[in-house]
Amino acid sequence: MTATTRPTTAIAHPTPDQVVVRGFDLARDLIGSTTASEYFSVLVTGERPTSTQVKVLDACIVALAEHGLVPSVQAARMTYAASPEALHGAVAAGLLGAGSVILGSSDDTARLLASIVEDAAANDGSMEACARAAVQELRSARRPVPGVGHPLHRVRDPRAEALLAYAESLGVQGPHTRALAAVVDAIPAIYGRRLVLIVSGAIPAVLLDAGFPARAMKGIPLIGRTMSLVAHLLEEQDTPIGFALADAAGREVDYSGPAPS
Amino acid sequence: MTATTRPTTAIAHPTPDQVVVRGFDLARDLIGSTTASEYFSVLVTGERPTSTQVKVLDACIVALAEHGLVPSVQAARMTYAASPEALHGAVAAGLLGAGSVILGSSDDTARLLASIVEDAAANDGSMEACARAAVQELRSARRPVPGVGHPLHRVRDPRAEALLAYAESLGVQGPHTRALAAVVDAIPAIYGRRLVLIVSGAIPAVLLDAGFPARAMKGIPLIGRTMSLVAHLLEEQDTPIGFALADAAGREVDYSGPAPS
Amino acid sequence: MTATTRPTTAIAHPTPDQVVVRGFDLARDLIGSTTASEYFSVLVTGERPTSTQVKVLDACIVALAEHGLVPSVQAARMTYAASPEALHGAVAAGLLGAGSVILGSSDDTARLLASIVEDAAANDGSMEACARAAVQELRSARRPVPGVGHPLHRVRDPRAEALLAYAESLGVQGPHTRALAAVVDAIPAIYGRRLVLIVSGAIPAVLLDAGFPARAMKGIPLIGRTMSLVAHLLEEQDTPIGFALADAAGREVDYSGPAPS
Amino acid sequence: MTATTRPTTAIAHPTPDQVVVRGFDLARDLIGSTTASEYFSVLVTGERPTSTQVKVLDACIVALAEHGLVPSVQAARMTYAASPEALHGAVAAGLLGAGSVILGSSDDTARLLASIVEDAAANDGSMEACARAAVQELRSARRPVPGVGHPLHRVRDPRAEALLAYAESLGVQGPHTRALAAVVDAIPAIYGRRLVLIVSGAIPAVLLDAGFPARAMKGIPLIGRTMSLVAHLLEEQDTPIGFALADAAGREVDYSGPAPS
Repeated sequence: MTATTRPTTAIAHPTPDQVVVRGFDLARDLIGSTTASEYFSVLVTGERPTSTQVKVLDACIVALAEHGLVPSVQAARMTYAASPEALHGAVAAGLLGAGSVILGSSDDTARLLASIVEDAAANDGSMEACARAAVQELRSARRPVPGVGHPLHRVRDPRAEALLAYAESLGVQGPHTRALAAVVDAIPAIYGRRLVLIVSGAIPAVLLDAGFPARAMKGIPLIGRTMSLVAHLLEEQDTPIGFALADAAGREVDYSGPAPS
Repeated sequence: MTATTRPTTAIAHPTPDQVVVRGFDLARDLIGSTTASEYFSVLVTGERPTSTQVKVLDACIVALAEHGLVPSVQAARMTYAASPEALHGAVAAGLLGAGSVILGSSDDTARLLASIVEDAAANDGSMEACARAAVQELRSARRPVPGVGHPLHRVRDPRAEALLAYAESLGVQGPHTRALAAVVDAIPAIYGRRLVLIVSGAIPAVLLDAGFPARAMKGIPLIGRTMSLVAHLLEEQDTPIGFALADAAGREVDYSGPAPS
Repeated sequence: MTATTRPTTAIAHPTPDQVVVRGFDLARDLIGSTTASEYFSVLVTGERPTSTQVKVLDACIVALAEHGLVPSVQAARMTYAASPEALHGAVAAGLLGAGSVILGSSDDTARLLASIVEDAAANDGSMEACARAAVQELRSARRPVPGVGHPLHRVRDPRAEALLAYAESLGVQGPHTRALAAVVDAIPAIYGRRLVLIVSGAIPAVLLDAGFPARAMKGIPLIGRTMSLVAHLLEEQDTPIGFALADAAGREVDYSGPAPS
Repeated sequence: MTATTRPTTAIAHPTPDQVVVRGFDLARDLIGSTTASEYFSVLVTGERPTSTQVKVLDACIVALAEHGLVPSVQAARMTYAASPEALHGAVAAGLLGAGSVILGSSDDTARLLASIVEDAAANDGSMEACARAAVQELRSARRPVPGVGHPLHRVRDPRAEALLAYAESLGVQGPHTRALAAVVDAIPAIYGRRLVLIVSGAIPAVLLDAGFPARAMKGIPLIGRTMSLVAHLLEEQDTPIGFALADAAGREVDYSGPAPS
């Protein structure tokens, strides 16, 4: 590595007297005048978000963070029960389940919506036609449509509705929200049944329409889930259920292998 | 397990039509009217925090989240460079460094301050005497005093100063802040030198004086660090330095074992 | 850091032509002539183990690695179901449960046995008396006796019996095995009931008597568990049960918080 | 879930008196007569491997496990320095770097070799032609050829040579080893330069030719790396270098963001 190619970071520069973050003086410019969500946006984008963007971001984190004993919370509570010396380890175990199938769905939806919007703009086509084409393509590839369908919320996802209504009340409505509606409308003709618009679909729609960069979408579930995991692990300290969860699940499983000779 | 001892959780109860969180209807009561920090407080305590508590919590998260290429950020960036298919895995790797030595220090300080305050109240003693006794005890046990001393910020930690000043401007001042000052004042006579009050000392002082429960302290660094890690990993996507960091560090290490015969 | 205090490692030194590990030439001296267990011992101790040590180490890893759908396996399978792009992430989630309560128990037993043996040697006391004192001390501190008692194997742990018998057949018997027997014998008088000697008690006894260093004990469960986790996650690819486990467990839990107003 | 679709596992079935693993009685059939590598093979495949398969498996684990201060080891040592209460957490952090770029390469090579062999068999084509086609396809897709090229071992990788020679000495030679040689030979004409055959290429070649199932390939680096990480973390206890590594790396990085106004 030569002097001209030293590695760089544009995020932070701590010196003995000052901590510079994204061009701000942390102590002077940020502490006390910036909320957590706002700061996350500064960290990722390098710029102060608008007040509307912060509101949308907060609403998204709140909408997604907590949904009871989902698999990642169960994994974390079992981990903490077995390893109570490391709360942060149990949080890490929970975050490891924030992958493509569950929480990564926001990320996939963001890409889907962005591509439909781009497609419609580039070809001067209707959003409806582009959404139909995108859904048809997913169907043909036997891949699920992200952002719709939930095993529990089969008729409506109240979180998605609340989030879209809130964004509308802030004047945040745009092509990505319309693309999402078009996706939902395109599904019955292609799949033969309606699929419910869910929170991990609504989140990228309102964030993208609020001007939040698509690439930062994955931060939302990770921050929200960290909050949820800490709450569950503190409850586990007082009301341990981690081992009971594992026992209950274990009782439901049969051994299907051979018996010893 | 009998019917009378079924495991319970008081955090959330999702049903097809409604997601109940801590007694609130998530869609109706929380989405759109609650910030991320406020929601974290609801999740942990079951109650809406005061507006002042939310402000203090936000300031603490902002103060602690980002400090450049600290070990946990480096670990996460190296992990992501080697495993770019799993951003959440690299976040988890980073959080695994949020242990006792670095980020756990807030937690330790919380316990120290709470015990000094309790001690002073119980024995009608002066805060100064109780702080001296506590510091002396740590010294005798050869354990470090948490909340003071930083390898970079040797003269002052601007984050701690900003946080304490902000809390004071909100009227948040109380026994834990005084206990912290007493700890700092007690050090020179016992250690023979001044140690700087740092941000992981100021955070528990202001949170406890704001009425935030001590046990939830560990959530602050974990939430803040998750935000920071996401920002660093998104930067790593564009400006990869993970392998360069490992190369640079590796060059500084000598092999001290035997040579092959 | 000055030139005289450069960091060092004695484990490995890769050069373009040669990889030196613990003073051996990896390609010339180790590949093809060393088993996995033997290599682990070389990595940790810097020396080739005896053939008996390798046999004991293999038997310990085999005894501990697999025990069905224990909490850490369930956590890993749930994690993999939600994040199938990262098998190594699910292994990591499983290992995060290899903490003090479950797998760390080998480590705790090792310390207990070592201290009883040391005690008996130092004071020329009987192993029985030293074991009784140690058990009494744990009881007084309300801490569990490590290495005994299992929720499933209440009458006998066949793994512990097989391991001790195998070690005996190799001539590996010594003070730590005797100390373990003394601990088991001391329990009824102090606890009012017999507790079964379990595999995580037998492992440190035979390893220590075989001359394996106590500090390396924690490697045994981690290596064994990694093997088990990989097998379970490959099964999860073909026969997914991760979400079913979470569903089954979730059904057993009641919400104990308030209802929304 | 109805009674007919209860989840199943074929790996293990512990009862009070017996632990059944893959149809074997763990205590009677496996402890004492099975090495760690052999047991891993039993766990994954359900069958006892041949003695040659065990030898190849051991050689592969030994060849891959340790290579000095690679990024995942550095990440683990930094994590442990910051979180010394959780050795298993630091192992998990290290394994999180066992992803696609570094250790996943064995997995990718396995797929490449299997597809070339299948291709040659199906079309009665020459291995050379099929390898050329496969390499050309990777080149066109701008994807790296797995199993070749190393930043340090630019002329030869002694581990790969030793492993292939050992396998040959065992009579393990077959289509996958020939496919690998064909890949290496195809590269110069397509890339304009020779690329060195490396250990993560040799491992899948010999394992597949030994009849080890391709899907289990990812276990090799994970088991080996766990062994290596435990050794490094025990060294870190005595000779801490985790923070020194982070300091050294941090000094090489420049801040490229704006200065505060």
